Amino acid sequence: MTVRFGLLGAGRIGKVHAKAITGNPDARLVAVSDAMADAASSLAGQYGAEVRGTEAIIGASDIDAVVICTPTDTHADLIEAAARAGKAIFCEKPIDLDVERVKACLKVVDAEGATLMVGFNRRFDPHFEAVKAVVDRGEIGAVEMVTIVSRDPGAPPPDYVRRSGGIFRDMTIHDFDIARWLLGEEIETVSAQASVLVDPAIGEAGDYDSASVMLATASGKHATISNSRRATYGYDQRIEVHGSKGAVSAENQRPVSIEVANAAGYTRPPLHDFFMTRYTEAYAREISRFIDCVNSKSAATPSGLDGLIALALAEAAVRSVKEGRAVKVSEVTGPLGDRGVFQGR
Amino acid sequence: MTVRFGLLGAGRIGKVHAKAITGNPDARLVAVSDAMADAASSLAGQYGAEVRGTEAIIGASDIDAVVICTPTDTHADLIEAAARAGKAIFCEKPIDLDVERVKACLKVVDAEGATLMVGFNRRFDPHFEAVKAVVDRGEIGAVEMVTIVSRDPGAPPPDYVRRSGGIFRDMTIHDFDIARWLLGEEIETVSAQASVLVDPAIGEAGDYDSASVMLATASGKHATISNSRRATYGYDQRIEVHGSKGAVSAENQRPVSIEVANAAGYTRPPLHDFFMTRYTEAYAREISRFIDCVNSKSAATPSGLDGLIALALAEAAVRSVKEGRAVKVSEVTGPLGDRGVFQGR
Amino acid sequence: MTVRFGLLGAGRIGKVHAKAITGNPDARLVAVSDAMADAASSLAGQYGAEVRGTEAIIGASDIDAVVICTPTDTHADLIEAAARAGKAIFCEKPIDLDVERVKACLKVVDAEGATLMVGFNRRFDPHFEAVKAVVDRGEIGAVEMVTIVSRDPGAPPPDYVRRSGGIFRDMTIHDFDIARWLLGEEIETVSAQASVLVDPAIGEAGDYDSASVMLATASGKHATISNSRRATYGYDQRIEVHGSKGAVSAENQRPVSIEVANAAGYTRPPLHDFFMTRYTEAYAREISRFIDCVNSKSAATPSGLDGLIALALAEAAVRSVKEGRAVKVSEVTGPLGDRGVFQGR
Amino acid sequence: MTVRFGLLGAGRIGKVHAKAITGNPDARLVAVSDAMADAASSLAGQYGAEVRGTEAIIGASDIDAVVICTPTDTHADLIEAAARAGKAIFCEKPIDLDVERVKACLKVVDAEGATLMVGFNRRFDPHFEAVKAVVDRGEIGAVEMVTIVSRDPGAPPPDYVRRSGGIFRDMTIHDFDIARWLLGEEIETVSAQASVLVDPAIGEAGDYDSASVMLATASGKHATISNSRRATYGYDQRIEVHGSKGAVSAENQRPVSIEVANAAGYTRPPLHDFFMTRYTEAYAREISRFIDCVNSKSAATPSGLDGLIALALAEAAVRSVKEGRAVKVSEVTGPLGDRGVFQGR
Repeated sequence: MTVRFGLLGAGRIGKVHAKAITGNPDARLVAVSDAMADAASSLAGQYGAEVRGTEAIIGASDIDAVVICTPTDTHADLIEAAARAGKAIFCEKPIDLDVERVKACLKVVDAEGATLMVGFNRRFDPHFEAVKAVVDRGEIGAVEMVTIVSRDPGAPPPDYVRRSGGIFRDMTIHDFDIARWLLGEEIETVSAQASVLVDPAIGEAGDYDSASVMLATASGKHATISNSRRATYGYDQRIEVHGSKGAVSAENQRPVSIEVANAAGYTRPPLHDFFMTRYTEAYAREISRFIDCVNSKSAATPSGLDGLIALALAEAAVRSVKEGRAVKVSEVTGPLGDRGVFQGR
Repeated sequence: MTVRFGLLGAGRIGKVHAKAITGNPDARLVAVSDAMADAASSLAGQYGAEVRGTEAIIGASDIDAVVICTPTDTHADLIEAAARAGKAIFCEKPIDLDVERVKACLKVVDAEGATLMVGFNRRFDPHFEAVKAVVDRGEIGAVEMVTIVSRDPGAPPPDYVRRSGGIFRDMTIHDFDIARWLLGEEIETVSAQASVLVDPAIGEAGDYDSASVMLATASGKHATISNSRRATYGYDQRIEVHGSKGAVSAENQRPVSIEVANAAGYTRPPLHDFFMTRYTEAYAREISRFIDCVNSKSAATPSGLDGLIALALAEAAVRSVKEGRAVKVSEVTGPLGDRGVFQGR
Repeated sequence: MTVRFGLLGAGRIGKVHAKAITGNPDARLVAVSDAMADAASSLAGQYGAEVRGTEAIIGASDIDAVVICTPTDTHADLIEAAARAGKAIFCEKPIDLDVERVKACLKVVDAEGATLMVGFNRRFDPHFEAVKAVVDRGEIGAVEMVTIVSRDPGAPPPDYVRRSGGIFRDMTIHDFDIARWLLGEEIETVSAQASVLVDPAIGEAGDYDSASVMLATASGKHATISNSRRATYGYDQRIEVHGSKGAVSAENQRPVSIEVANAAGYTRPPLHDFFMTRYTEAYAREISRFIDCVNSKSAATPSGLDGLIALALAEAAVRSVKEGRAVKVSEVTGPLGDRGVFQGR
Repeated sequence: MTVRFGLLGAGRIGKVHAKAITGNPDARLVAVSDAMADAASSLAGQYGAEVRGTEAIIGASDIDAVVICTPTDTHADLIEAAARAGKAIFCEKPIDLDVERVKACLKVVDAEGATLMVGFNRRFDPHFEAVKAVVDRGEIGAVEMVTIVSRDPGAPPPDYVRRSGGIFRDMTIHDFDIARWLLGEEIETVSAQASVLVDPAIGEAGDYDSASVMLATASGKHATISNSRRATYGYDQRIEVHGSKGAVSAENQRPVSIEVANAAGYTRPPLHDFFMTRYTEAYAREISRFIDCVNSKSAATPSGLDGLIALALAEAAVRSVKEGRAVKVSEVTGPLGDRGVFQGR
């Protein structure tokens, strides 16, 4: 069945989702809203959709699902409104910068029985999915250590940094989710260190641009994450899982894979320049999976709980840097109840 | 301007082009024809196009361009009819299995001033295009030697072999075109050897399944081609250009680039399983380029002449195997006149 | 000038050094001692050297330099005796498991003006040296993050674990030295986590077999280290340095670099099986450098201070795991005086 | 048993063998001869050997084996003299530039029952040996196509070209031997094309600097060889064997395997600069194998017949270029008798 979409937010990531929706044979983009009227009409026009107000979209009878790409501080309210209106919801991460607000929001979603998927797009990258499949088939035995290197090609403007909740909630949050997903066990403690090496303005905005994180599970599995807001060679996205019987890794991706050899050596081109080109296929598969969930009325993953836990890991990392100690995730989340057991997949 | 397409032939390669056309924002698939009514209606239905007869499509006023994906022995006639009807023409290779028939066909195209592009899809592969760009920018100096390895994952049925004109006209023809394109100079002599190593039925059908070819230009540049109808590891497509200042190569492509390490070593997955997945992007870019040519009324490449010369190289290879000698291309083509100078690009 | 060597200790690492010494045109192996008479005579016989007692070697007038490969708890005493006897000293790491004992030993070395090199062999690996040269030439700009993955193919016997001082003092100590060397700035804090995933007997012996470490310098540079006592795919030794202008890495090494392709994919053989084959060339170059230092009477690096600091980093890691906090290196070393500034290369 | 060597010829390749002999625990270099007295005494002095005349070495009772590294036109006479003197013989390729002279020489060797090994060093490269082992274990099924790319970093002086017998007898001869070795079946026909692209002086000397060769066996197996006297990126030495069940290849080798990433891309260093560094290990293993043959009195390979056939392939290639046709190897060799069956291993 064709799923009829309303898109809330026509900015950078909104455009990415508009493309994925309109390229999917089982989806139709009905309407777009944005606080900036021009942005909404431009995007709507490109894909033959209507411009409507956000409330109108949420209340519309000809729309089955909303995709929330608005500023972070509106996410939780919009999720609640859409859940109450009976819409299926795809929301960009994070749900909110505040753990308690997220918990409250998820209670509404739960109460309404709404379908909610959170936008951890990397789980849908075909290379990362293939890594996960190798792990799940037991080919590398019991997972022991996950290693993630994740570097952005350039630093965001300090203004963005202020609104984003900082590097851990904005950038590392993707790596936290991937680490949990690959470890297959909940993370118990977070240790982090962070500094400003790229742009002093980021430090002045109260954030960091370079970070290292160690994660540990109750059974002693490890993950390490290495983040930088700088990578002259492109968007650096590597994962590796080491287990009792072997290891599996995903290589970096580049737009063209050629090699030039001369007296200076053998040179391959730089990597993709950022997430829009690196994860094109992941975004398309993510929407496709969401559509499957909507049509089959099955639970969507990454779920709201996945979003909550990744945010809690970010919060724990912030505390760890400030206090110079390993922080328990339960210090941040409090007791999670029955749904707190690991549900990644 | 949107180009309105008629698709002649709804078989394997017709489906590939239908997908490329309908995925292009500047194209519209108006009608599909096929000798098998079911094939036509199924493909037309999938993309919201009409089913029409071949002649009706060629004569239609609401169609700007035809894509010819019918059996090879119909190509030349259809090209001539479409040229006379004022249609822009995209034709799958080869134009015909007979060099003289191709020459006659191209005279009609010339006389009508028709736009004709021949389907050497590999020129539009982004990796191969990047190789060509490195060569054209002079980064490797003067081209000296082109090395092509091109192996199909499996042998075609003997029945196909009989209709196809044999390995040189069906399979190597792509490599001949790439060799010319990368050498940047016309090929003067062809030496080939061929044998049956994969499937005796191919030998019984009068063809070969394993072939090696050497090409030389007047100035002494070389190309070597290695072909097999068998490759257990997937669709093997490698090119390398060696020049006075360096070399450039395009690696093989695989659907996912992960690596599993264990006591048996480090293993990456097999390559793409065949051309439909390996050259998906090339087919899309090919149609896009064709649309640009139609809209700008500029000469299309690969041109009819490119198709003619690649066929002549195949014919020369056949003779070389039979006679155990280096065959001059001019023995096959006869004098080509002014247009016989190199026009690749 | 030929340097005349006495070798103290004819065990596994003693044999490695005997081979490096006798393969060097500027060295001669005069005598070998070992608590096990058979081991000494076997090794001495193989290379045409004499068997002598340890004290006799240290006091001999026909010996210029000693190589200390005895059990760790004898290192400091032997270094002091050799220093007082005017011998140049090459000592396997660590100098002692106790930081205060090392400091006392180094005072004697200093007072005697003895040449002392500590066996951090990896600094002499040609691939790692090439990485360091790229960093030193400024090709990647200012160093920001060092990433080290270092995994042993198999776990040592629990008995060894007890004597070795544990994973951080025995195994990670090499990575601590490489991290300092590549960061080019002293490490200020150490955060570590460790667990037992490979062999419960290691846990029963009071040690860990899986460890992750984060290091930070005063200016905010990072290093991460990932260690395991298990790697089914061979001796895994990777380093990467990320800087403001780029990054440089050293790949893993394997005995033969071939690739087999079939329906299961593309497979390269496993890595070297352990340090004896992986670092053969490094051991030869290490002794060669030591000989140069002896002949030129220049200060040797890695120095005794390098050995002390690496040990202090290990001690800090142990505390960090136990106390769940970032540990300052100065908590372990106390004030180091003028020589405490960074002197690595 | 220690084999006592006499070395005839102290030039470039003589030095390579002197190093291999003196580095082997089962060999002793007793004496060196050279037409240039200085060259002989310098090399002898370096390794503690005596200088003697060539005849004196061949007749000496304290010498078991000779290594012939003199100019090519002396090889056959020296082999015959050494065979008659009861010496084991290692001779650099080629035995002679004339096929009939080689046949006559091998008759003497046969009659005397002498041990003769011909210096096709590449068979002893550990990477190529690993390729051969994969083939011999049947891992890739029946061999179908061998692909060799072999490029020298720079062209030899025209003077050398004149004496060497030309590119096919001097350079390609190694590739002919490797092709035979890997095909596992005698070559029946040779097709070659060659040109002058690198240095006109080579053309004036009557030779070529760029060559392509196709080989075919009676059962239809193929090999292709691509040669150039120019490669700005180092000594390019690649082999690949394609079979019915898969393929196996050996990668190029470089002195250090690091990678630098920056805005220009990912760069690995150039390859080894020539055969002395690329094949260091092969030369050592070659002499080791020769010593084994001498000690076990077993037949040595590569044998004199292997040397003869590789030379015949070169001669056939020369004719193929001149006559523009596929040349049968039997046209060059005439009937080879019982020993003409394939004996490669």
